[in-house]
Amino acid sequence: MSGPINPPPRLLMGPGPINADPRVLRAMSAQLVGQYDPWMTASMNETMALYREVFRTANEQTFLVDGTSRAGIEAALVSLLEPGDRVLVPVFGRFGHLLTEIAERCRAEVHTIEVPWGQVFSAEQVEDAVRRVRPKVLAIVQGDTSTTMCQPLADLGEICRRHDVLLYCDATASLGGNEFEADTWGMDVVTAGLQKCLGGPSGSAPITISGRAVDVIDGRKHVEAGLRADGETDAPGERIVSNYLDLAQVMDYWGPRRLNHHTEATTMLYGARECARLLVEEGLDAAIERHALHGRAMLEGVRGLGLEVFGDVAHKMHNVVAVEIPDGVDGDRARSGLLDDFGIEIGTSFGPLHGKVWRIGTMGYNARKDAVLVTLAALEQVLRAYGVPLTAGGGVGAAQEVYAS
Amino acid sequence: MSGPINPPPRLLMGPGPINADPRVLRAMSAQLVGQYDPWMTASMNETMALYREVFRTANEQTFLVDGTSRAGIEAALVSLLEPGDRVLVPVFGRFGHLLTEIAERCRAEVHTIEVPWGQVFSAEQVEDAVRRVRPKVLAIVQGDTSTTMCQPLADLGEICRRHDVLLYCDATASLGGNEFEADTWGMDVVTAGLQKCLGGPSGSAPITISGRAVDVIDGRKHVEAGLRADGETDAPGERIVSNYLDLAQVMDYWGPRRLNHHTEATTMLYGARECARLLVEEGLDAAIERHALHGRAMLEGVRGLGLEVFGDVAHKMHNVVAVEIPDGVDGDRARSGLLDDFGIEIGTSFGPLHGKVWRIGTMGYNARKDAVLVTLAALEQVLRAYGVPLTAGGGVGAAQEVYAS
Repeated sequence: MSGPINPPPRLLMGPGPINADPRVLRAMSAQLVGQYDPWMTASMNETMALYREVFRTANEQTFLVDGTSRAGIEAALVSLLEPGDRVLVPVFGRFGHLLTEIAERCRAEVHTIEVPWGQVFSAEQVEDAVRRVRPKVLAIVQGDTSTTMCQPLADLGEICRRHDVLLYCDATASLGGNEFEADTWGMDVVTAGLQKCLGGPSGSAPITISGRAVDVIDGRKHVEAGLRADGETDAPGERIVSNYLDLAQVMDYWGPRRLNHHTEATTMLYGARECARLLVEEGLDAAIERHALHGRAMLEGVRGLGLEVFGDVAHKMHNVVAVEIPDGVDGDRARSGLLDDFGIEIGTSFGPLHGKVWRIGTMGYNARKDAVLVTLAALEQVLRAYGVPLTAGGGVGAAQEVYAS
Repeated sequence: MSGPINPPPRLLMGPGPINADPRVLRAMSAQLVGQYDPWMTASMNETMALYREVFRTANEQTFLVDGTSRAGIEAALVSLLEPGDRVLVPVFGRFGHLLTEIAERCRAEVHTIEVPWGQVFSAEQVEDAVRRVRPKVLAIVQGDTSTTMCQPLADLGEICRRHDVLLYCDATASLGGNEFEADTWGMDVVTAGLQKCLGGPSGSAPITISGRAVDVIDGRKHVEAGLRADGETDAPGERIVSNYLDLAQVMDYWGPRRLNHHTEATTMLYGARECARLLVEEGLDAAIERHALHGRAMLEGVRGLGLEVFGDVAHKMHNVVAVEIPDGVDGDRARSGLLDDFGIEIGTSFGPLHGKVWRIGTMGYNARKDAVLVTLAALEQVLRAYGVPLTAGGGVGAAQEVYAS
């Protein structure tokens, strides 16, 4: 029989998941309580309040979807989009394609605009498309790890209000490590995951929903037979095709009615709560500044090694950098060498970038000076073995300069 | 700000979730590794092998759905059922209604048969309905915690084969504590959860899929744009409406292709793996016998207190008993007293049984003599405070007799 779980020591410096903060893992080892225990419902309420701070929102409907970040995305789209609804997806990387794919399965009429990988959209490009498509929902990724780009969002809320469009944002890769203002930016629905800048494991998807999005979703509410209050009738909107990801039901589960839906994934709740506590304790601004600092150190470090960086660096997320693989280096073999000999994981790439760039992350618990420097030191050794021309000590030296300045 | 997680001590003797086995919580505190790390993919393969033992199957496709048990149910139904397909659901409690509700959302043509709560179906009743409805899928719950009943399944596989019907079973509440034979009984898809007899937290849904069900599901496979192999085309069947719960994609993620889908919920995987290891280490037969023993002790214990038991006890699950609330006792207030004064949780009930019965569980880590005896001792004190006529020591005494025999 397989032995007890005993993972090898790894420093996870890819685009996520990264090492969980030990405090999150300790929180997750706490014993369970019943799902309607007053202590449990109080913990759920505390978790809602904490995520309001993380998303920077006053939205009452701020809670967790019990699944990975992808479950959060699908919950948002399947609950907002009725068949035939128009949705506009600006695609600037793999996760834009994912939004498209999920929206298609909702039988929405999906319209996309695209920029080449490594770029982002201007507000004008988005508004032109909104004017042309007249969508019910604009669905956009903030940070797409496939390209490392971080889409500016500050103007999109106003555009959406002007054209009476709901604004959905997938902030999985960026939240906690890059500026994000759900209310100031006029977001209607935002979803995330724990495994990036939040420093936890995958498996819980924080979500926040504006009042007007709540109205849209509740307009489709069909309470389960047997849970219905006397005289309660179905809302007029088309029933949401998923039960598990039906946000109208999930809101009634987290809300004062506490209507039975799924059995809350308590251990993931403990972890999600601790992730938010860590961020709130540090201060959101301080956490974002930390990600900016260590991201800058890694960026200058790989440049100091003589490597080229992919994409529009001015619009890069703080927490990940795409590094062009030097000529003569087999990217996947070099990654394996780094993992096997040094215990450090960096990321490969998808689609058009596969074999061309590595993705190196500095996020969550691993947005730390020692993690940055040890990664640069080991990378130098691996590249040296391939005969790549480089400046000895150039990576660590450049990063140290960032820290010193 | 909210403080660190610090749950009150609770002995969870309801219908689940119950206290997690401390070994499971310890496994879940292990640090993460990358999702394509060779150690991680090996751990995923080990988990698949362990759950083949738990389900008693040789099915290659045996893995975890990243969500609660309800996510597993929906993954099975949405992946099997195309719009317009006929499905037959024998309903003998709340979770039969849930299967119906989820199947309706898949836009299947749903047919039900029902027995009163507290009873199960005969094989003849099911076969008659199969003959009449001619469904593509027979979807049935094994153990419905709402009534405590355990539906006999041994004959259903043969009936389904005879009528060319796929057999899906929700074994969430029963697996690990009651006999279950996926292959011998001719199951096509079976789903479960960790929070009942498996002794873990909610949040991961083990699933097993027979070869013929794999063919049906793969007949609907649409690989995501950008992940498609050269020349790979979509299968002819209608695309599955969920991306997150698309088992065709999830199989490619767990299989040798390791096609990117969700980011595995690593901590839940560690927990699920440890739950299965505990069961396999104890031996499935021994674990079922343990649940039978402690369930019998609890049954005789509540009878020894002078309480009546609800339903067809001959068809009760080993791991939960429904106890009629004595006249003059406010069921919910008595439950609160047990929780507040003794730290013991027992369950309330749904629908037609609400306010009429309590549900008391003896499952997973809490299928133990001390847990049974302390619950009976405390229950006696609570009932005494209500002036319920009872035999002092009658509950613990009757349970001790079961243990002595």
